[in-house]
Amino acid sequence: MRFFEDIAIGQRRELGSFIFTVELIKKFAAQFDPQRFHLDEEAGRKSLFGGLAASGWHVGSVCMKLLVADGQRLTREAAARGEKTAIWGPSPGFRELRWIRPVLAGDIVSFATEVESVRPSEKRPEWGIVQARNTGTNQRGELVFSLLATAFVPRRDAGS
Amino acid sequence: MRFFEDIAIGQRRELGSFIFTVELIKKFAAQFDPQRFHLDEEAGRKSLFGGLAASGWHVGSVCMKLLVADGQRLTREAAARGEKTAIWGPSPGFRELRWIRPVLAGDIVSFATEVESVRPSEKRPEWGIVQARNTGTNQRGELVFSLLATAFVPRRDAGS
Repeated sequence: MRFFEDIAIGQRRELGSFIFTVELIKKFAAQFDPQRFHLDEEAGRKSLFGGLAASGWHVGSVCMKLLVADGQRLTREAAARGEKTAIWGPSPGFRELRWIRPVLAGDIVSFATEVESVRPSEKRPEWGIVQARNTGTNQRGELVFSLLATAFVPRRDAGS
Repeated sequence: MRFFEDIAIGQRRELGSFIFTVELIKKFAAQFDPQRFHLDEEAGRKSLFGGLAASGWHVGSVCMKLLVADGQRLTREAAARGEKTAIWGPSPGFRELRWIRPVLAGDIVSFATEVESVRPSEKRPEWGIVQARNTGTNQRGELVFSLLATAFVPRRDAGS
């Protein structure tokens, strides 16, 4: 992962795509969100969603999955270059999660993250605070998911 | 589910408890949040969490699971009394999700929901907008999770 000093407003990373198949939608829903329009095609078609729809928590969890994979990729690449890598702090939470459009069975959602603000932490000088907008866009280019995440990111010169 | 007219500020429902076992924490993390402190006890102990910690998305998804079960229970009870039940609209998202304390392996988290605000929708007179604070509290009475949810709730006299 990157250090605070390496992060600037507007930096964007494409996190990759995920196909929300019938099977994966039903599997997540059966465990965590067993509403009928997440479990049954016919019930989905009759609902406001107009089709078997992924749970919003499934969409958010897949975004997390791709964020983690991207961070692990960055860490491996930095290690391969012999660079020191940053260990980010635990996330305190996030704001403004929006499920903008349904994610229906067969939809391919591409996730991305873009830095919206960076500032040093006043209380903890060894950390910076980064806000990033994580988004999901479907195969028609429509925004389906958006979340404003907050992360504590270590400063390069702290604690070394 | 209840109609808008049946909902008042301060109404609280206990949603039940969930044991975050080692197995369930690792199973969720392997699928959606494969960071080491969510996958391995030793890595968890060495992390800022101090133990194998559940993914925050796991905690949120379990809260959703218990909310859905509670809604289904309310609907069954109303149907048993011969009452009409409300079908809530899709959630547009939520605000202020906070992971306040780690949820560690073996923790028992009790979830609850409490109504914070109610107002008629200006654009759609057949709907009301309800904001509720969903929380998780561990076996030591410590708040670990909080989220401010928004829901569109049908009005009793609309569309009947």
